[in-house]
Amino acid sequence: MLTQDNYLDLIENYLAQTDFPAEPELLYTPISYSLAGGGKRLRPVLLLLSHALFSEETQQALPAAAAVEMFHNFTLLHDDIMDHALLRRGKPSVYAKWGENVAILSGDAMMIVAYQLLCRVQSPRLPQVLSVFNQTALEVCEGQQYDMDFENRQKVSVVEYMHMIELKTSVLLAGAVVMGALLGGASEEDCRALRRFAIELGLAFQLQDDLLDSYGDERLGKAIGGDILEGKKTYLMVTAMSRADEAQREVLRSTHLDATLTDAEKVARVKAVYDMLDVPHLTEQQIGLRFERALAQLDAVDAPAERIASLRAYAESLMGRQK
Amino acid sequence: MLTQDNYLDLIENYLAQTDFPAEPELLYTPISYSLAGGGKRLRPVLLLLSHALFSEETQQALPAAAAVEMFHNFTLLHDDIMDHALLRRGKPSVYAKWGENVAILSGDAMMIVAYQLLCRVQSPRLPQVLSVFNQTALEVCEGQQYDMDFENRQKVSVVEYMHMIELKTSVLLAGAVVMGALLGGASEEDCRALRRFAIELGLAFQLQDDLLDSYGDERLGKAIGGDILEGKKTYLMVTAMSRADEAQREVLRSTHLDATLTDAEKVARVKAVYDMLDVPHLTEQQIGLRFERALAQLDAVDAPAERIASLRAYAESLMGRQK
Repeated sequence: MLTQDNYLDLIENYLAQTDFPAEPELLYTPISYSLAGGGKRLRPVLLLLSHALFSEETQQALPAAAAVEMFHNFTLLHDDIMDHALLRRGKPSVYAKWGENVAILSGDAMMIVAYQLLCRVQSPRLPQVLSVFNQTALEVCEGQQYDMDFENRQKVSVVEYMHMIELKTSVLLAGAVVMGALLGGASEEDCRALRRFAIELGLAFQLQDDLLDSYGDERLGKAIGGDILEGKKTYLMVTAMSRADEAQREVLRSTHLDATLTDAEKVARVKAVYDMLDVPHLTEQQIGLRFERALAQLDAVDAPAERIASLRAYAESLMGRQK
Repeated sequence: MLTQDNYLDLIENYLAQTDFPAEPELLYTPISYSLAGGGKRLRPVLLLLSHALFSEETQQALPAAAAVEMFHNFTLLHDDIMDHALLRRGKPSVYAKWGENVAILSGDAMMIVAYQLLCRVQSPRLPQVLSVFNQTALEVCEGQQYDMDFENRQKVSVVEYMHMIELKTSVLLAGAVVMGALLGGASEEDCRALRRFAIELGLAFQLQDDLLDSYGDERLGKAIGGDILEGKKTYLMVTAMSRADEAQREVLRSTHLDATLTDAEKVARVKAVYDMLDVPHLTEQQIGLRFERALAQLDAVDAPAERIASLRAYAESLMGRQK
């Protein structure tokens, strides 16, 4: 049985073998640059682990895994333009390095290359896989639009926020595991269970990301408070807003705009409100709940126990909950 | 046998029936807006006329025709951002009306919807059609990148310019006719001939567009000289540059930047150089040559004469050469 690291190597090799023309340079160089940026390759690894539940023909699923990673990187290129993000995985974003037009057009090309990769899949189930991919891709765009909408809105409910991150983050994980399962020959029922697994895992993962941004991860020693300083609507923020009185709401709304405060003071002031409202604890509860729901779905999947254990272990490692 | 107008109606109806979700509004409203902008529907009509050479099952080809039109409109959304174009077909562009982020993301969604439409095609040849579509889409991006590259370059040769417009304009016409032919059951040989037909037709069409922008179309009474005022590298400009002496070259390079001249003076000054260098006549020759080459390809196609005549008549009407 292949390990997580084996899968990661397979993906890296497959992506590295994807050749691009030399010209026009400004179309193709940013694609290679973006792919070389690394990352966990979370989505393709999930696709291969899901595929492995039902099949040992890993090669068959590799083009789809690469397509999902390519699509994910396309979304990063365009998101970085919309967010004016200058850094991506510690390096200049394509937007920062080459400008907006190049980031738009290289991103477009990446989406087309994702479809080219997907069309390499040799399977009678390709039409179903394409259909899942199309639906997933469109939902990711919906999620990004809601995210932008929310930044311009005063009030966002917790339910609206959860719907947005389901679209923006979870559905691509779900698309990946369903595509892997379909190619492995899974039943409709197993595809549905794996979809629920990935949706809940994605929510847990995103909420944890929100929590760590404000409360940090001692293991990583990462800078804390970026979301607070940007006034971003995170799970912490929308939960706090839903529980705050008028005075607290004002602090949550306006602190990041207050030019008389240092960054550290801003972060401390908002976190003081979060703490008063029990937000970190409520977030941890929600993460735990979502993650438990995710794992519970795996019990229903008809596949060899050690393969399910392997997917489960990967999910746990993602959440920093290795056994 | 269906007429051009029948085909146009079929396409308009099919596009009008393509429903989009109500939410998120800023993702989907610009798509409907863009599609409602009209236009000649050149690419889908060509696809259906090409399909009709080999098959009477027009319904079978409609999703592909709609996909090609959707893809074309996606390119317009993103091109308008890159060109900062405020108008499209006489109405505010999506970029002007909703801003850049909406134009990026709605454009992305349109590309995905194009694939969704394409995947509706019921044909054992869908994999080939997808492959043609992917390759075409990527080449259109290459053409757009070359076009942007050229704007930043001092010198562009006529050969380079022709290569750029082949990618930017011709390949999508070629992709459309090949997809139509494939779905109609055409042989490889017929697909190749139709591809050459569309490549040459696209070149003739683009060169005519370049010529009319500077020398006008008395039938249309359109404003003249937009390309000259923008200093755009058109067929006229690159041809003139290749034949100009140093003094003429300087006029061609700098006139559009000269703040002491009125627009009418700028246009007159550049056109005087074009005329001295015989550029309008050379351009007309090139258009005639390309168009003849296009039509000659049709002689080799194995299809009923009256169907070929119908495609030929459409090509002639595009070039304003109705018999």
